[in-house]
Amino acid sequence: MSSKIRVGIAGYGNLGRGVELALAQNPDMELVSVFTRRDPASLRLQSAGVPVRALDQIEQYRNDIDVLILCGGSKNDLPEQGPALARWFTTVDSFDTHARIPEYYAAVDAAAQGAGTTALIAVGWDPGLFSLNRLYGECVLPVGQTYTFWGKGLSQGHSDAIRRVAGVAGGVQYTLPIEAAVQRVRNGEQPELSTREKHKRQCFVVLEQGADADTVREAIVTMPDYFADYDTEVNFIDAETLARDHAAMPHGGFVIRSGQSGSGSQQVVEYALNLGSNPEFTSSVLVAYARAAYRMNKNGQTGAQTVLDVAPGLLSPKTPAQLRKELL
Amino acid sequence: MSSKIRVGIAGYGNLGRGVELALAQNPDMELVSVFTRRDPASLRLQSAGVPVRALDQIEQYRNDIDVLILCGGSKNDLPEQGPALARWFTTVDSFDTHARIPEYYAAVDAAAQGAGTTALIAVGWDPGLFSLNRLYGECVLPVGQTYTFWGKGLSQGHSDAIRRVAGVAGGVQYTLPIEAAVQRVRNGEQPELSTREKHKRQCFVVLEQGADADTVREAIVTMPDYFADYDTEVNFIDAETLARDHAAMPHGGFVIRSGQSGSGSQQVVEYALNLGSNPEFTSSVLVAYARAAYRMNKNGQTGAQTVLDVAPGLLSPKTPAQLRKELL
Repeated sequence: MSSKIRVGIAGYGNLGRGVELALAQNPDMELVSVFTRRDPASLRLQSAGVPVRALDQIEQYRNDIDVLILCGGSKNDLPEQGPALARWFTTVDSFDTHARIPEYYAAVDAAAQGAGTTALIAVGWDPGLFSLNRLYGECVLPVGQTYTFWGKGLSQGHSDAIRRVAGVAGGVQYTLPIEAAVQRVRNGEQPELSTREKHKRQCFVVLEQGADADTVREAIVTMPDYFADYDTEVNFIDAETLARDHAAMPHGGFVIRSGQSGSGSQQVVEYALNLGSNPEFTSSVLVAYARAAYRMNKNGQTGAQTVLDVAPGLLSPKTPAQLRKELL
Repeated sequence: MSSKIRVGIAGYGNLGRGVELALAQNPDMELVSVFTRRDPASLRLQSAGVPVRALDQIEQYRNDIDVLILCGGSKNDLPEQGPALARWFTTVDSFDTHARIPEYYAAVDAAAQGAGTTALIAVGWDPGLFSLNRLYGECVLPVGQTYTFWGKGLSQGHSDAIRRVAGVAGGVQYTLPIEAAVQRVRNGEQPELSTREKHKRQCFVVLEQGADADTVREAIVTMPDYFADYDTEVNFIDAETLARDHAAMPHGGFVIRSGQSGSGSQQVVEYALNLGSNPEFTSSVLVAYARAAYRMNKNGQTGAQTVLDVAPGLLSPKTPAQLRKELL
């Protein structure tokens, strides 16, 4: 009988594939099944011998899985799957629509409380590790300002917006923090920064045959919500360059807390991520928190939870005594 | 009747004074008394109306204090005071002798378990916030390396060592991370670094009248344990310059986790502190964790605890719902 934590994956896109890879780096956990809404026979996993099953049959596997990692999207999948699956499984998800977290929490909590499961929501890096650092920052330095910068990173939403512009055959968008603003914050200046002063947007666009570059550029930089409030740079490239140089999904950013302690001393705390692969990093965070969700459920900590509720030691395969000795 | 958390301070040096200032930034907490081994009448607090009392009379105030913050030193004070005071109070301390944490934990745990108090030990930034980041780093990126760099910062121990050298009238020592090494780590190289490659030591020394500079320099740079394993720079200055330019106690450093996620993608996580006042920052961390210790005790989480056991949300005066809405 295995003493490993038995993990299931629901949804097999970039995130599900990342979770599969991350599980292979954590020997105390094992992937027992992948669940999909697609035809199970159509999926080719990276790991050998792991069964793929239909998501609508998942209930019958409730005794075979300790934690289910939900790898669907926040817009269409999780609002339905989160509460539905928490009725049968202890779950972890990366719900990341910041404004809708309270209502999502409430829906998942009702399901999980009723079932005695634990549902750890909004896990990843933002929300997730960045949220933790916003919290630690303001608790330790209650007099001060918190700044979050994102990038350099590929934004999926903004890349999609570019690709919807008439005359565009393909393209990607990178969000870049403005270095001068970051430097002012690091220096402890606590500036008030407008949207335009914090980030700029950099686009690499492939035109359709015969499309006019100036017209496309104008359509992009004036697009409300996505680009109008930013300084936006539009670069035209060919399809080959796009495929060769812009296929990776890097991301990252900074959370900086700048404050004054009691006598007015300047104190600056910075947390920075430089990620070669955004989905793989999010997946790695999900897997560490899956270990914690399993333990919280065993300890009777049921219902919806967030990273703010997770005692850090629960994330580690090491014993508390080992952690005190090695990491304190 | 006050609904504030009632806090006591045991020991009134730099740390005790910092805790006093930090409490004034946290309106849900109030300082009810300072306890000292000195003559209470000899202490002048920064806050009005707070009584100073003799530490050896502290037991009689056990019902007046929700959390006692221990501000003594790790070498001589805490090994005795930690276990002794945990018999009567829920405590927080900044015990920072890394190698002795397991035995200190055991002694405090025995006292606190017996009394039903909560004793949160080794709180500060290292151990403390740096420990948390070493933990989060290795849990999220199990394949990788963790690096801790300190500085630029004033080292009390090394400054004391300089001042014991014959011919030295005064002096301070700064620990500096070696920028080239930090940069290699940030780039994801995961280098093996020797002691000398990670940090250098910078000394500012005032000579006694008639002392020979070369002899003093030689005595410093060859001193075993403290300087012999480092590149050490010795600068001679006058007493006035020492007092004017070297009275502050800045410190800081970095915890960097560099790792590879599943498919080999480079991921780098960095946590950096840039502190204008080391004791004030440590004090600010102690006060945030005092709030958590109080709550853990109310929740029945008794015995010795460390930052690794503290669910982050317990640090904040905000409600869990407010935290989810504002910080996630």
